[in-house]
Amino acid sequence: MTRIRLIIKYDGANYVGWQTQPNGVAVQAVLEAELKKLTGEACALHASGRTDSGVHALAQVAHFDTESRIPPDKFAFALNAGLPADIRVAYSDEAPAGFHARYDVVRKEYRYVILNSPHGDPFLRDRALHIHYNVDEAALTEEAGALVGTHDFAAFKAAGTSVKSTVRTVFDARWSRDGELLIFDVAGSGFMYNMVRIMVGTMLDVAMDRLPRGTVKAAVEGGDRRLAGATAPAQGLYLLRVVYPDLDTRDHVPPKGALL
Amino acid sequence: MTRIRLIIKYDGANYVGWQTQPNGVAVQAVLEAELKKLTGEACALHASGRTDSGVHALAQVAHFDTESRIPPDKFAFALNAGLPADIRVAYSDEAPAGFHARYDVVRKEYRYVILNSPHGDPFLRDRALHIHYNVDEAALTEEAGALVGTHDFAAFKAAGTSVKSTVRTVFDARWSRDGELLIFDVAGSGFMYNMVRIMVGTMLDVAMDRLPRGTVKAAVEGGDRRLAGATAPAQGLYLLRVVYPDLDTRDHVPPKGALL
Repeated sequence: MTRIRLIIKYDGANYVGWQTQPNGVAVQAVLEAELKKLTGEACALHASGRTDSGVHALAQVAHFDTESRIPPDKFAFALNAGLPADIRVAYSDEAPAGFHARYDVVRKEYRYVILNSPHGDPFLRDRALHIHYNVDEAALTEEAGALVGTHDFAAFKAAGTSVKSTVRTVFDARWSRDGELLIFDVAGSGFMYNMVRIMVGTMLDVAMDRLPRGTVKAAVEGGDRRLAGATAPAQGLYLLRVVYPDLDTRDHVPPKGALL
Repeated sequence: MTRIRLIIKYDGANYVGWQTQPNGVAVQAVLEAELKKLTGEACALHASGRTDSGVHALAQVAHFDTESRIPPDKFAFALNAGLPADIRVAYSDEAPAGFHARYDVVRKEYRYVILNSPHGDPFLRDRALHIHYNVDEAALTEEAGALVGTHDFAAFKAAGTSVKSTVRTVFDARWSRDGELLIFDVAGSGFMYNMVRIMVGTMLDVAMDRLPRGTVKAAVEGGDRRLAGATAPAQGLYLLRVVYPDLDTRDHVPPKGALL
């Protein structure tokens, strides 16, 4: 039995998210079907975490166990031969003993992309949130500062999500501008379902005068979902990087400019 | 009667090209239908030139005449309200007397994008040509040099295309690399149907050892389509910039990094 790990990129526009669901096609299901064709086995994929419907991945990590004799580094090529073009395996290798794609994560990075311009862009439809209003960037930066550190992020937990603990550590949270693109980069020990989208939605509510300055800080301290703002749409969100003690996706999937 | 000009961006993946065709949806037809809704008139759009099926535009220019009282600069907003998200009008204004989007062009720029990497990219499917083989970049650059100048480009004319003259001036033709992207930028007085795609296909044939060095020069001098190479696929091609004596699309649609 060999444990194989994959670095996977996907355009989330046509999927219900990572995790197999009754109502539509999931990235996980597409990959597992392809693994079955390749190995003849019902391989179960375990990812670093699930991504919502419409969310993209520039570097998702998942592992599976197999008896197949396919060399570990060849799984990427073999899977890509059969996968649809909106899912690509960028890298594959044999995992060290005991590796687990979900439990061994030491750092995850997400990026949220906003197109801040009078008109939308055909090439960013489904890949960025389009805002044509003015956005107060100083407010965004100020709010983001309140996210950094080890906090109870209960206010940034989607209703109905059950988790053992809502304490997470955010290592870094910052906004930058690249022309008409407004980009939020956040790195942390881990993120709950919808957590990044609620962070972004809340900061945008402040930057667009729908909520007062200091809302993020108050929500972090208060721990109530009602203290935070809206959940930003999925299409602007990218899982950017996952880091394990012996694997950093950035070493295998170099960033390509602002979006890729 | 007012003559309005538009700068239009489109993702060509879902269209048969700019020009209205019997077999599928054309960008021109979608825009004319929206203009009819807006003005009540059957406005005919005249573009800087047509683009093939699957070819993209970061800045196409087109004009039309109207009796409508809509302020010229508001057409962009009014059209975008009804257009599909893969077509956006980035700018609109009133054209000076006698302006013609096709006949008045003084410079056009195209970009061809190649993803040169072991695996494809979900976000560049339909937006770049994926080549996983090694490409001889020195050969590309050498071949491109033979394109520059005023030449008879008969060898780069698609079979069946009828044009008065096959003489064109190429101002600049150069390859560059941005990570895994190989980019060809070409500027000229004008381009025939398929001309850029035949240029790129021929240079790639040389760079991948399917045709000898010097093929571009020999084809330019020989003037026979059979001397040139393959026609590169449409999906990597972008109409990047159109310049008129009083309008440069770059002033209104700034470039956004390598791809946008």
